[in-house]
Amino acid sequence: MRILLTGGAGFIGSHLCDRLLADGHRVVVVDNLVTGQMSNLVHLAGRDDFLFLKSDVSNFIFVPGEVDAVLHFASPASPNPRSPFGYPALPIPTLKVGALGTHHTLGVAHSRGARYLLASTSEIYGDPQVHPQDETYVGHVDPIGPRSVYDEAKRFAEAITMAYHRFHGVDTRIARIFNTYGPRMRADDGRAVPNFITQALAGQALTVYGTGAQTRSFCYIDDLIDGLVRLLAAEGPGVHEPVNLGNPNEMTVLALAERINALTGNRSPIRYEAAESDDPQQRQPDIARARALLGWSPSTDLDAGLRRTVDSFRPRA
Amino acid sequence: MRILLTGGAGFIGSHLCDRLLADGHRVVVVDNLVTGQMSNLVHLAGRDDFLFLKSDVSNFIFVPGEVDAVLHFASPASPNPRSPFGYPALPIPTLKVGALGTHHTLGVAHSRGARYLLASTSEIYGDPQVHPQDETYVGHVDPIGPRSVYDEAKRFAEAITMAYHRFHGVDTRIARIFNTYGPRMRADDGRAVPNFITQALAGQALTVYGTGAQTRSFCYIDDLIDGLVRLLAAEGPGVHEPVNLGNPNEMTVLALAERINALTGNRSPIRYEAAESDDPQQRQPDIARARALLGWSPSTDLDAGLRRTVDSFRPRA
Repeated sequence: MRILLTGGAGFIGSHLCDRLLADGHRVVVVDNLVTGQMSNLVHLAGRDDFLFLKSDVSNFIFVPGEVDAVLHFASPASPNPRSPFGYPALPIPTLKVGALGTHHTLGVAHSRGARYLLASTSEIYGDPQVHPQDETYVGHVDPIGPRSVYDEAKRFAEAITMAYHRFHGVDTRIARIFNTYGPRMRADDGRAVPNFITQALAGQALTVYGTGAQTRSFCYIDDLIDGLVRLLAAEGPGVHEPVNLGNPNEMTVLALAERINALTGNRSPIRYEAAESDDPQQRQPDIARARALLGWSPSTDLDAGLRRTVDSFRPRA
Repeated sequence: MRILLTGGAGFIGSHLCDRLLADGHRVVVVDNLVTGQMSNLVHLAGRDDFLFLKSDVSNFIFVPGEVDAVLHFASPASPNPRSPFGYPALPIPTLKVGALGTHHTLGVAHSRGARYLLASTSEIYGDPQVHPQDETYVGHVDPIGPRSVYDEAKRFAEAITMAYHRFHGVDTRIARIFNTYGPRMRADDGRAVPNFITQALAGQALTVYGTGAQTRSFCYIDDLIDGLVRLLAAEGPGVHEPVNLGNPNEMTVLALAERINALTGNRSPIRYEAAESDDPQQRQPDIARARALLGWSPSTDLDAGLRRTVDSFRPRA
């Protein structure tokens, strides 16, 4: 297949690009490089099965040649208000890429008869009141809260994706991606794993916001990519409904910090700072649908994934 | 003031247009006439304080001259899947006017330094699990449900409106409008009041979907317009937060049907049909914020409002 991949210079997008090329597909990446990085793609330069277009899908998209699948992965995704690469610092671009970018990319899929996969997010569940979250849970998002620029953009993206499926017959897929970690995360986007690893490798105190008792469920990037590729290929009943992709192995943010200190030999104490407003207190995917529909579940254990991630961050430290 | 009003040929928009002109403002209406009707504005033809532009704000907006306020009221709004003018028949245009239309009109307000008022809706609360609904309730909307094309579009519209306020300093207002009725509702858009009145005036059985035990709280159009004008003019703390505008006088849909039969002398029995999917079971505004902030509450009683509405429908029957 020839695949259009937006956000292909980002953390998840670039790993997905590598996998699609390894599977024998041709890939056209469109990225505006606002949060994505060319360093994630530079190893692909010169390949004739790979094309990079620097362009903002919120404004416009034009892709010459055939397109068999469209994967929309472009968006700022870090909730950290202190990072210039988090969505709190990029509120309007985040709203635009979720709405206008999704509209434009659905238009490409519709006009070319291509399959479409939307990268949605566990953030559409907001601060959940049901635990763990399965795909029938409608979520708990404040439409005017500080995180709504991302959460509502992605909820809108799901709504318009289903509308293109239902009313234009576009062959759509929706992945609700939970917390994912691995090599190529930006060291400077303020997410827990790269923050902790960067601090630990520098021998600094790890910064935890709030008590650290808030939980997350961290999925290693290779597991996620495997789930995405399976979802893209899946056929039959249920494939158009959203599918949670994540690791049900829930842990506190504090336990994650302690694990990273142990793996890196960092002996600095944890430093606590004020909690983020709107920070979800619990987050764990119910992946029964992914198991049934895709035969998928994550297989990388946390220590193995963290070790690979730490190793990839060493040259930067 | 010179006011840009999108959706000004619609039910609410055209009443608002009349009121703004009566208050001495100049009004530019932009409407694509997909659900709006020129018959709602024809009495204004030739006035030099009124301009009509037939244009789709989802695609593009250009308004020559000064603009002091932008009021975004354009959208299909009827949930009835049987009507060609309901949002189920117009899913993509509904998603677009909520996202792209709001983005474009906010751009006008931002570039002209104009005040902005978004027509949001009680539908952002979905099928509520809190009753009555105050503005802090975050709602219960299925992002991929059949009504999500409207509900998520309006939730997105609120999120981007707040983002333009917080990050660009635009002087925004958000009205969450509950069920409203009155003259100029389309007889053919499938909403309860015009449906019932049209059937009653023809001596036909009134069609109730489901048991009729689902509740709504119906506000007469003049009361709503008064609340909107007060919100537009309001200053001071809290004016940028969403404000519920509606009538807390909750009743069942069946009671409404019986009231309309009584007022019109229609003796045909009620006819029950299958319930709509996703139809909210209860809906009642908590208007404490509007009372405190605007000194507003509805004053038209149901029989008086229904009589005026019935009278306005007689020539059509």
